[in-house]
Amino acid sequence: MQIRIYYEDTDAGGIVYHANYLKYFERARSTWVRDLGIKQQALLEQSIAFVVIDMSIQFKGSAKLDDLVTVTCELLQAKRASMLFKQDILLDNKLLVSATVKVACVNTKYAKPMGIPTELIDAIDKKKGNA
Amino acid sequence: MQIRIYYEDTDAGGIVYHANYLKYFERARSTWVRDLGIKQQALLEQSIAFVVIDMSIQFKGSAKLDDLVTVTCELLQAKRASMLFKQDILLDNKLLVSATVKVACVNTKYAKPMGIPTELIDAIDKKKGNA
Amino acid sequence: MQIRIYYEDTDAGGIVYHANYLKYFERARSTWVRDLGIKQQALLEQSIAFVVIDMSIQFKGSAKLDDLVTVTCELLQAKRASMLFKQDILLDNKLLVSATVKVACVNTKYAKPMGIPTELIDAIDKKKGNA
Amino acid sequence: MQIRIYYEDTDAGGIVYHANYLKYFERARSTWVRDLGIKQQALLEQSIAFVVIDMSIQFKGSAKLDDLVTVTCELLQAKRASMLFKQDILLDNKLLVSATVKVACVNTKYAKPMGIPTELIDAIDKKKGNA
Repeated sequence: MQIRIYYEDTDAGGIVYHANYLKYFERARSTWVRDLGIKQQALLEQSIAFVVIDMSIQFKGSAKLDDLVTVTCELLQAKRASMLFKQDILLDNKLLVSATVKVACVNTKYAKPMGIPTELIDAIDKKKGNA
Repeated sequence: MQIRIYYEDTDAGGIVYHANYLKYFERARSTWVRDLGIKQQALLEQSIAFVVIDMSIQFKGSAKLDDLVTVTCELLQAKRASMLFKQDILLDNKLLVSATVKVACVNTKYAKPMGIPTELIDAIDKKKGNA
Repeated sequence: MQIRIYYEDTDAGGIVYHANYLKYFERARSTWVRDLGIKQQALLEQSIAFVVIDMSIQFKGSAKLDDLVTVTCELLQAKRASMLFKQDILLDNKLLVSATVKVACVNTKYAKPMGIPTELIDAIDKKKGNA
Repeated sequence: MQIRIYYEDTDAGGIVYHANYLKYFERARSTWVRDLGIKQQALLEQSIAFVVIDMSIQFKGSAKLDDLVTVTCELLQAKRASMLFKQDILLDNKLLVSATVKVACVNTKYAKPMGIPTELIDAIDKKKGNA
């Protein structure tokens, strides 16, 4: 997934504000979910949402205004109630930011953890079978 | 209401990103509502939210990192289903941003306009009586 | 220009946070500038930036998570030191947000207004000639 | 440091968007720096900025609209070119988010790492002496 850097993304240091890289990671995970045929808005209407519960991030370089960065999203492990992703942000094949992200599924009405929807588990299995 | 400018608020131009001033206006309106004794989270749980429907903004100056700006919030007019505010952002008594903001009340479940909650109308009337 | 709505764009009301529409307008203006062959990062390195000085916005509808909105950018008028744009945000041909945006050019080192760079003026004239 | 949660901070899940907690951590670090008598805007004008280079975050709970959270900032270690912080976000003494954050100093003109300014080192030492 490619993401263009706009003024909104930068800060007074002249580079992308560090917290914004987390948004790019989330955009890439959302795209990954959408590509599996899952509609997050439909899940949300059933009070189901994905939340980040653990994250480790290394910032090695910076993107600037007008840059076009690439964001990756690789599922390392899917458990009953959480998924572990490895994600990178690259600029011209140079690694800028690297992260491992653990995502859980919650019921937004009761703020309680819940199992990952079976439609997502099935879509992941089907994709693996195709690979 | 005073607001400190952090890195998150600035952009690569070295000043506050223009859309962020709208956040400060909204913080000041939220504080105004809270000071009237209204809990927005409680309203939200009843599917009631305030949304901006019309806005006119003049940007005359800029705030920078570490600046402490003052944000005002004056109710010009309260109708059955909307409120009109005059809001300014100042730095050391110098006007930076000026806006008129029209806010309506919506039912978030049906995305439909609705009358302003009577508890807010009453609180406004009571405040006027005290003034 | 098409923009996908992610979690980062929404608020607890379940819709896009109003100030974020200004980011989409700015992304569309940046894309318009880039399509004219102007590099904003290069301008920035010469201490030249575009800033919004006046804006009028009507919010008529809302976008939700996963929506794909269209953002337009039409130059109404170019003067020596400012440009006036008409911008819309649409979802499935339904108008959500409409704005007129006045943009000026500033020297970021002295925070002073300056004339629009001639390369941009020339690119606008050339585009008009082609149209 | 106490931070109020506004609409801008939340997402369609009804809770604070995860990347925004990084902003609160940065606000607390900025306040810590300011309390040491260091002016970040003055540093920035000399092309000196602090950047996050490594971060590990555990999200254990969520804040909602109108909540007033407490953000802590404890310096664990100061080296020649980096500082390590332990930071927590709490709501009513309940731990919501916990992080370790490694911050380095960079020259923004050359995007190069540099030693932490001696005025900051001295201020840290002086504070330790007072403690």
